[in-house]
Amino acid sequence: MLSETGTQFFGYYPGTVALVTAEHAGVRNVMAAGWHTALSAQPPMYGVLIGRERATHALVAGSGVFGINFLPAARAREVQGTGVLSLHELPHKDKFARLGLETLPGAPLALADAYLYYRCRVIQTVATGDHDLFVGEVLEVRHDPACYDGQRLFTGEAAVYLGRSTYVTTTQEREIHVPESFS
Amino acid sequence: MLSETGTQFFGYYPGTVALVTAEHAGVRNVMAAGWHTALSAQPPMYGVLIGRERATHALVAGSGVFGINFLPAARAREVQGTGVLSLHELPHKDKFARLGLETLPGAPLALADAYLYYRCRVIQTVATGDHDLFVGEVLEVRHDPACYDGQRLFTGEAAVYLGRSTYVTTTQEREIHVPESFS
Repeated sequence: MLSETGTQFFGYYPGTVALVTAEHAGVRNVMAAGWHTALSAQPPMYGVLIGRERATHALVAGSGVFGINFLPAARAREVQGTGVLSLHELPHKDKFARLGLETLPGAPLALADAYLYYRCRVIQTVATGDHDLFVGEVLEVRHDPACYDGQRLFTGEAAVYLGRSTYVTTTQEREIHVPESFS
Repeated sequence: MLSETGTQFFGYYPGTVALVTAEHAGVRNVMAAGWHTALSAQPPMYGVLIGRERATHALVAGSGVFGINFLPAARAREVQGTGVLSLHELPHKDKFARLGLETLPGAPLALADAYLYYRCRVIQTVATGDHDLFVGEVLEVRHDPACYDGQRLFTGEAAVYLGRSTYVTTTQEREIHVPESFS
């Protein structure tokens, strides 16, 4: 029951974290983003919110390209690491190498261990309070077929975030709901 | 491993479904939205994508107000029902009543069984391909204290969507990751 009322905002949980990858002028980075969503099916568009002070913001704004990667529960430590470590503090380090995150040959923004990856081109930037929404046209989709069944229903174990550095995954037991009718 | 490449877009899963509520000119509705995200912490802003053909779109556009509700796994059937049933098909019916979704006295957009609710005022509408992003200023937040611990870490069982009418929840076992350092 919704018995507590206030004006203090707090995000919904659980949520699936997106790892945003970007590269510009010889610098690459990867960061965890809890605020992201699909924006359109046709044409395919995906959006992510990035604080203007984040190192990745300048790379996405400068290159006009970003990657979105979803990692399995087995890599929750790395997901958290990309959110906690900052390129600003140690500009000569590489977060991918530090966290053991490999990228694919020929696809430098795709994390090899992801179960789903989108490569996006920025087509609009919308300022939203203390963040910018990067609106991306999805140019390429890659997935790990071991994490999907024949009907592309996800069967893997995603890294699911609860806030406060805490991760879970989803239960194996499933409920399938048949269509309702008004009758 | 990301071994399959294509251009066909498909959304990430698992995902937490938001139930969007709206009311305008004596008509109210509730719909499931898989595409939604926080947009800003200060000021608090929340966004939801709604197809222009949806009955709820006209209610949000007309009233300039929407509610965002998150329901527990025990109400997954109702979550799915709000996504499948359409007010367009049976305009004289009421989806809340049909699905047994009660609202709070004095808060007609808040679903009583939600664990988290935001009331939002539309401050911008961004066209994104085949959807509109309603950018909302969060005016009020309500939550169910039974679903959070003393540090506001979510302890409930959320309805988590896998696509294709299939729902799961999150596992009880948790991993907490301590801060990484570059050293």
